[in-house]
Formats: sequence, structure tokens, C-alpha cells
Amino acid sequence: MSDRYFEDFAVGDVHKPVGRVRVEKDEIIAFAKQYDPQPFHLSDEGGRKSIFGRLVASGWHTAALTMRLVAGSEYRAVEGTIGLGMDNLRWPIPVVPGDELRIESEVIEKRPSNSRPDRGLLKIRTRTFNQAGQVVQELIANAMVPRHPPADNA
Amino acid sequence: MSDRYFEDFAVGDVHKPVGRVRVEKDEIIAFAKQYDPQPFHLSDEGGRKSIFGRLVASGWHTAALTMRLVAGSEYRAVEGTIGLGMDNLRWPIPVVPGDELRIESEVIEKRPSNSRPDRGLLKIRTRTFNQAGQVVQELIANAMVPRHPPADNA
Repeated sequence: MSDRYFEDFAVGDVHKPVGRVRVEKDEIIAFAKQYDPQPFHLSDEGGRKSIFGRLVASGWHTAALTMRLVAGSEYRAVEGTIGLGMDNLRWPIPVVPGDELRIESEVIEKRPSNSRPDRGLLKIRTRTFNQAGQVVQELIANAMVPRHPPADNA
Repeated sequence: MSDRYFEDFAVGDVHKPVGRVRVEKDEIIAFAKQYDPQPFHLSDEGGRKSIFGRLVASGWHTAALTMRLVAGSEYRAVEGTIGLGMDNLRWPIPVVPGDELRIESEVIEKRPSNSRPDRGLLKIRTRTFNQAGQVVQELIANAMVPRHPPADNA
């Protein structure tokens, strides 16, 4: 599947990319040191003493890893997808070292852009699963994608 | 200000931490390579050819940098803040190389947790500004924080 225009997305489309990403402890700690230095993201001991009972990944790390799976998916818009924002970003359970993540996306709404006639707006629900099939993240993305150029038959 | 319990947060509280974070081009590209490898996040040229007209940071990078400012703020809950999820995450304009970011947070709602009597739930609106005072990100965080332990006067 090559890159898609607005017209190539349909409400109800479900996409399950084959990509997987495995999350190791070192990466969880490195991300936390740089962006979310709370004890339960920084060490096994900090995790054990926390409400989580163990080291867990920052939710923002889960979000970034999900973006990696989205960007690596073959289900994407031409020129890339412009994320205008996200609704209902949820982390029902944390990501832990050794987890292997995958995503599923569903188009739940589409409409032409009012401000830009060459663009369309999509609402896409993306859920991120661990290897046990548990949802570790859910969000609804508001994305802007290019419309198909008019046919040039002058 | 030391770490806070649920009882120490009041609706309407506005907090403007003094912390700033400057975003350099190298970091924007490094984040994008790892988590959001789209052309407009990866190089000046990819940015020029895009709808942005220049290299811009991934929105998820902006979110991660905002978390760094939140975690470094003195306005935080004891044991750290557990982010249950985010509503209305928006990136009105992109972060670009050289931007210097700061945050402002406001408590907009609080209530005791139904499921955990030792915890309370807060809704906190956090906006991220660049050095020109423009909002580069806005979100509403749903956070769970510890309640003050009962006084031990047996």
C-alpha cells in the first residue's frame, strides 16, 4: 500500500500494522532521565517503592513508541500526517521492561478542512497493545492529510 | 514549597514554574529519528518541502519536554504525579530549533478518588509557551495524587 490521500481513508477502516517494538529497561530509564525523571521511571528500586510496585515506562515514552509504530506503518498519508492534537489519551496500564508493543488504528470520522481546501481532517482512534493483548494506551488523533489533486485533463 | 498532598491543591491555583528548556536542532532530529521519523522532523530540507516550511519538532517531543518542565517544577505531589491520561492535547504551533519553553499550570477540578480512599484526582490544565509567549502546547491532565495521611493521635 502506497501513501494515501484523504479520499483513500474511509470511516470504519481498521488497520493493524505488522510492526512491533520491544521496550527494554535501558531505554525506559534513558527516556525518563531526559524527559520524565520520576523515581518509578528511573530504577527498579524506585519502582518497587511506588504505587506501581515495579519500574514502569513514562506514559510519554509509550506515546513516543506508539508514534514510531504509526510512522513505520504502511497506512499513512502522503507527505506525512500532521497531528493537530489528541483527545482522550489514556494509559490504562503501564508499559514495563520487555514488553513488545503493537498498534491498531480505526478511522472514526472524516471531513474536508474548512480553512484549507487542499486538506482533509481525520479522527483516528489508535490503541497500543502489549504482547498479552492488554491496552497500554488509547488515543484519538485529529490529523490533517492532503486531498487528492484534481485530475489534470485540460 | 515541598511536595504536596491532594489537600494542598486548590481549584484556581495557577503555577508558573521558573524552569525553562531550550530546544536545539540536534535534539529535535535525534528524537525524531528514534520516535517520529517524518521528513519535516528530520532535516532542514525535509522541513522546507513540507507544509511547515522548516524543520519542526515532533509534537510528542514537545509533550516530552513539557513533562520535563512539570517534573522539574516545585509544584508537584508527594511520591510523584501519576498521569491517568490527558484530554485535549493540542499543538497550535510547532516548536522550532532555538525555542525556549516554559509552562503554566492551573488546577481546574479536584475530587476524591472513588476507588482509592488514600488518593485524590486532579484535572490540571498545562500550557507550554515559547519565548515569544505563543502557546505551543495545551493539555488537560488527569492526575492521581496521594491524600494526606490521617493524623496519628491515638
